[in-house]
Amino acid sequence: MTQMTQEILETPGAIAQCLAANGDKLAALVAEIQARDIQQVILAARGTSDHAATYGKYALELLTGVPVSLAASSIYTIYGKGLRLQKNALVIGISQSGAAADVLAVLAGAKAAGALTVGITNNEQSGIAQSVDVHLSCAAGPELSVAATKTFTTEIFLLAKLAALWAQNAALNAELDALPQTLQSVLAQADAVESIVTRYRFIDSCFVLARGVNYAIAQEAALKIQETTYVRALAFAASDFLHGPIAMLHRDIPALIFAPTGAALPDIQAILTRLAGENVETLVVTDDSETARLGSFALRVPSAQNELVSPFYGVLIAQMFACSLSLLKGLTPDTPRGLNKVTITK
Amino acid sequence: MTQMTQEILETPGAIAQCLAANGDKLAALVAEIQARDIQQVILAARGTSDHAATYGKYALELLTGVPVSLAASSIYTIYGKGLRLQKNALVIGISQSGAAADVLAVLAGAKAAGALTVGITNNEQSGIAQSVDVHLSCAAGPELSVAATKTFTTEIFLLAKLAALWAQNAALNAELDALPQTLQSVLAQADAVESIVTRYRFIDSCFVLARGVNYAIAQEAALKIQETTYVRALAFAASDFLHGPIAMLHRDIPALIFAPTGAALPDIQAILTRLAGENVETLVVTDDSETARLGSFALRVPSAQNELVSPFYGVLIAQMFACSLSLLKGLTPDTPRGLNKVTITK
Repeated sequence: MTQMTQEILETPGAIAQCLAANGDKLAALVAEIQARDIQQVILAARGTSDHAATYGKYALELLTGVPVSLAASSIYTIYGKGLRLQKNALVIGISQSGAAADVLAVLAGAKAAGALTVGITNNEQSGIAQSVDVHLSCAAGPELSVAATKTFTTEIFLLAKLAALWAQNAALNAELDALPQTLQSVLAQADAVESIVTRYRFIDSCFVLARGVNYAIAQEAALKIQETTYVRALAFAASDFLHGPIAMLHRDIPALIFAPTGAALPDIQAILTRLAGENVETLVVTDDSETARLGSFALRVPSAQNELVSPFYGVLIAQMFACSLSLLKGLTPDTPRGLNKVTITK
Repeated sequence: MTQMTQEILETPGAIAQCLAANGDKLAALVAEIQARDIQQVILAARGTSDHAATYGKYALELLTGVPVSLAASSIYTIYGKGLRLQKNALVIGISQSGAAADVLAVLAGAKAAGALTVGITNNEQSGIAQSVDVHLSCAAGPELSVAATKTFTTEIFLLAKLAALWAQNAALNAELDALPQTLQSVLAQADAVESIVTRYRFIDSCFVLARGVNYAIAQEAALKIQETTYVRALAFAASDFLHGPIAMLHRDIPALIFAPTGAALPDIQAILTRLAGENVETLVVTDDSETARLGSFALRVPSAQNELVSPFYGVLIAQMFACSLSLLKGLTPDTPRGLNKVTITK
């Protein structure tokens, strides 16, 4: 079994550990957020963690209404400038290794300006963990595969928990806490994923589409496919796809589509119908039977009560899909060419 | 001559008209920004205009230090929520047609919350133009090609002018005002572009890379290539490319790289050297002779004093490249399949 497969399977346990390790810290952080009357949030990250940041933007804006921006790290690192931040700004740096130089630079600048700084990493001893006001640990255990899986899921878990606690959304909070159980049924789809993947043995490109809170999962699915299979996966929010990229549609390029029940579903159903009309093959990840019928093929996931929980189901499918396709192509998902586990950019 | 070619050639004149039409309005807007002590900026847009927004984020953060976020419109349109904004927030909606329903929704929510609202459109009579506190007109004249060109350039011109005036950067302001003249020498590269494009007649994928303020131009170049040639163009910030996508490198997939003189150049030179080592063909858009030699091929542009001016040169090259490649492939850049000039999404 590859490390990547093993680490995907460890996700439910990692989330349980993450929950146990951060309960008190999250409560204290929310108290500090309220004491400071936080009015803006900035998220700094790269690669997979940047897709966690995209998820965090949706979760925090939807639940708290506080505007969230994704940091352009180069403002600090390349150009040597900083942002005018105050005590009412919250800056969250996200990095699996905790060693990302660009994220550290954003956090250092934010701290000097008086903002509240938070780090989300999988390494308690890392530079980021040591430098921030509050460190939230993924507590996912060592991740050895170059392609990050369980650390992504614990990163978005911490961001979702923060948003739910900040907004005092007890129902979402409870649904998140149940993930170690509900994710088991997603992992049980491994055979279905392995079976459908054979169809894609010879693709060299694909589209990955989603809308709203699952846009981050389209981004992350595309990155997993890119780095483990070398397939040119192009991710788009369904809305952006209509503003130009749709011209690329071709019957020999399949589309992977995340379509859970929720407010974004009607838009996704409309795209599915349009793609069917263009003879584009679609693989739909959904909990909804009607939506499953709109796709060429479907992979089933559990239904989420709150749409913000659906990304946890979708990303596990995406990770299993990429890993299976990599193995089917005779590649090594644990050690993609040209990559190391820790990438330091400024 | 195609409409797209014609409209690219009209860019210098469009910028001159844009400058003449907005001088007083920009001065009044900056006065209002100072009166309100604006502390955060939100940019709302889709498609090409969203890439203008990315440019605007870099320009405004670099010059003013005020944090800028790109709106996730679905927060308003799909989920029916809004952001907690105050009088010290500036929200800028960008839309060529001025009819974008999603951008209108963000602006309406912002206005109701008491924020200062600005619209950048190419239609004085549009819904967005009529609804905002301050309308800045592209004044680019009618744009008939589906692929936007001169409206993108006037959108980033207005954002650059706003940033330069807000920051009282007289040197940048003067360099921007000279663009109607300096852009002529970029248009004079049309033959060089048409000549090199023959090499790419049969590509089906390419990478487009840049760093810092030119990341927006990589995004926009990729979109122009996608919609007019149907080539799967994948745009990345050079830093993000190292965090996974670099595994996709292949000698049969060329890379288009924007590499102007400036603080981001050393990082881009390092990527060029790495790509050369992997036998990946590169086409470099640069003003720097040493950098030109690092690429397989180069297209020359003028030198910008302020790096924020270099995107104007790069994007004209990108637009000419996409248009030439579309024609060479026997396609019609003015009317890509599956697209209309105005796309309304919510």
